[in-house]
Amino acid sequence: MRMYDIIEKKRDGENLSKEEIRFFIDGYTNGDIPDYQVSAFLMSVFFRDMSEAERAELTTAMVESGDQVDLSAISGIKVDKHSTGGVGDTTTLILAPLVASLDVPVAKMSGRGLGHTGGTIDKLESVPGFHVEISSEEFVDLVNQNKVAVVGQTGNLTPADKKLYSLRDVTATVNSIPLIASSIMSKKIASGADAIVLDVKTGAGAFMKELGDAKELAEAMVSIGNRVGRNTMAVISDMSQPLGNAIGNALEVREAIETLQGNGPQDLTDLCLELGSQMVLLANKVDTLDEARDRLAENLNNGKALEQFKAFIASQGGDSTVADHPDLLPQASYTFDLPAEKSGTVSEIIADNIGTAAMMLGAGRATKESEIDLSVGIVLRKKIGDPVQKGESLLTIHANTSAVDNVKDKLYASISIADEAVEALPLIYDNITV
Amino acid sequence: MRMYDIIEKKRDGENLSKEEIRFFIDGYTNGDIPDYQVSAFLMSVFFRDMSEAERAELTTAMVESGDQVDLSAISGIKVDKHSTGGVGDTTTLILAPLVASLDVPVAKMSGRGLGHTGGTIDKLESVPGFHVEISSEEFVDLVNQNKVAVVGQTGNLTPADKKLYSLRDVTATVNSIPLIASSIMSKKIASGADAIVLDVKTGAGAFMKELGDAKELAEAMVSIGNRVGRNTMAVISDMSQPLGNAIGNALEVREAIETLQGNGPQDLTDLCLELGSQMVLLANKVDTLDEARDRLAENLNNGKALEQFKAFIASQGGDSTVADHPDLLPQASYTFDLPAEKSGTVSEIIADNIGTAAMMLGAGRATKESEIDLSVGIVLRKKIGDPVQKGESLLTIHANTSAVDNVKDKLYASISIADEAVEALPLIYDNITV
Repeated sequence: MRMYDIIEKKRDGENLSKEEIRFFIDGYTNGDIPDYQVSAFLMSVFFRDMSEAERAELTTAMVESGDQVDLSAISGIKVDKHSTGGVGDTTTLILAPLVASLDVPVAKMSGRGLGHTGGTIDKLESVPGFHVEISSEEFVDLVNQNKVAVVGQTGNLTPADKKLYSLRDVTATVNSIPLIASSIMSKKIASGADAIVLDVKTGAGAFMKELGDAKELAEAMVSIGNRVGRNTMAVISDMSQPLGNAIGNALEVREAIETLQGNGPQDLTDLCLELGSQMVLLANKVDTLDEARDRLAENLNNGKALEQFKAFIASQGGDSTVADHPDLLPQASYTFDLPAEKSGTVSEIIADNIGTAAMMLGAGRATKESEIDLSVGIVLRKKIGDPVQKGESLLTIHANTSAVDNVKDKLYASISIADEAVEALPLIYDNITV
Repeated sequence: MRMYDIIEKKRDGENLSKEEIRFFIDGYTNGDIPDYQVSAFLMSVFFRDMSEAERAELTTAMVESGDQVDLSAISGIKVDKHSTGGVGDTTTLILAPLVASLDVPVAKMSGRGLGHTGGTIDKLESVPGFHVEISSEEFVDLVNQNKVAVVGQTGNLTPADKKLYSLRDVTATVNSIPLIASSIMSKKIASGADAIVLDVKTGAGAFMKELGDAKELAEAMVSIGNRVGRNTMAVISDMSQPLGNAIGNALEVREAIETLQGNGPQDLTDLCLELGSQMVLLANKVDTLDEARDRLAENLNNGKALEQFKAFIASQGGDSTVADHPDLLPQASYTFDLPAEKSGTVSEIIADNIGTAAMMLGAGRATKESEIDLSVGIVLRKKIGDPVQKGESLLTIHANTSAVDNVKDKLYASISIADEAVEALPLIYDNITV
């Protein structure tokens, strides 16, 4: 078998066999196949696409290119959630304890990553004492004891995906549905989940700006998951404006606590109930989605979700009193409000730009080496569709410098106020199950 | 400027600017841009094509990536001929002295190359004493004195094309009209010709099997030539069966001599008159093609073309008496005839396979390191459309071994004899001028 023939076959629109896909992934992972052949292949995939069978084979080959997390010592169906990423997405901090409060095991492997704010682990490290440096055995034990634990990425998971992603990033082959879908799914599958709920974002602040593209990606991932024996579904949710109100690490932890107390922003609460009930259903803990949703809502209101959060924080060394005293979280030195320059209705909040403003304050990493400031960020006071009076605060900036004029300019340019009434945006566009 | 953006632009079907093409070629030539980005770019070109302006810019950038031959010290319009390659293509050996016999300067830079037989230089080296190791000054002097000289490739011509070709060869991006056309034209233009006649072959023995593809390639090359200020035209000629009768180095020299004496095979003579008259017209030595053809035919019959050949051979150290005594050329130890197994009409002679048979005898190079045997090869006795009696010779094998059963099997499998009459094939399909 030769890589040349595999490139040519894909270039000419033919489907590759399982053996050809394995040959490519194994050869690329071990260095036998050079980057320049793989980039030509990837560009052929960009133009010719891959069949559902090819996508599943590609995913499986990437999973098997490295280590796989073994969660078999955890009893029950392990359901993972993955979001394609957006601005102010605090759902994982809420969903992990919330779903665990219904006895669904949540064994979360998470990262730090680049972006507008830190990753889930950065956010959790806002809580004094909390740490993720635990062994695989401790991780499994914690989930069995408390139903929820979060660990940093360990082992050499999906090295083929890492190599492919680096190459795609410099050869203009990132934006290809079969490549995006197999990349995401290989990581989730290698992380050991039995079932997967995907939160595919769409809108100006998402990778997939158009609803049609988001649906196509969701369908591709759901197909892969189900073909490789992991029960998978996707929710398509809005990322035109930031989710919830807080953008920033400690600020999002505070918002998560409020949500677990039943006092969170409506959109964030609703999305957590939607994603959470899908997770509980895939875990076979309920018979219907409605039952799942009712029980999750109940646990937000009766304090059980918050108790689960406290136990989880304490089990990984964190100070669980933050749940009752959020002022123990890191706090920025300055706050500034952004007064509306006119009266009307908020008609646009460009999520990407709000995220960039948070990053300018220090909330996110521009490069792997950047230090992040856990205390800074932005809290929105208005969302799309909200009426606003001239002079009323649109949002609050939390900063460790008083020189925030650039950030203010960026934020003013990101928020539009219309004279006429504006309808609030839908939060959830679709559910994809097959 | 970033190569990433150039890949993305081409991937999305946009046209590249002159500056972008220069950036790509210059960066790739000097090693700043890695193979893996270029192969992704080349695959984008495969799918998206290039505009005529882009093709011309690409060609110019490749020409300027290295040395260029300066023929300005040779008076007159220097016309070069290029064939896209086939089996038994002896035209250069004939055309060089034939066209020179009408005072058109022919400054031919030629190669050895891989293939069924050697290159033009290998063939000429069948003549005892002939050599091409001459300096640039000698080369120019010889053309000024004798109107014709042949030199090996010197200098660092089109290094960008060399790098690109090596990469295309391993990434399934050879078969792309803009890339083929710019590669051929860059070499011709860097070789210093003022005007170019292209012989684009079509049929089973050619790179372009289909007439439509051959026309597309011809149009692409003619467009490039004329856009960069080199008067260019193309003849599209048949390569379903081998051209002429001889396939082999010394055998082709003998056939060239016979043709220069006016006794050559009809198809080879006709094609030389067609290509030659186009060259003479581009050199402004005549007013019409008919005039050019008449004067060339006259020089084949009156001995002037043969005299020109003798002078050319002698000027580069060769024994010009071969022109009158072709037995002085290297001769193989054995000859074998291939008798027809049935009576009928020759309906097919698969050029590629005949070429492969010649290579099996030792006439060509499989790798750069292969030694070639100048004496061996094949001489066809019948062409498509010829009647043949059972037992009559279809061709003669010239070999330096008596073990030619494999070659005979290959040849029998390459020639078909039909019961019914078969029309001879057209030799020339089209002329492309704009």
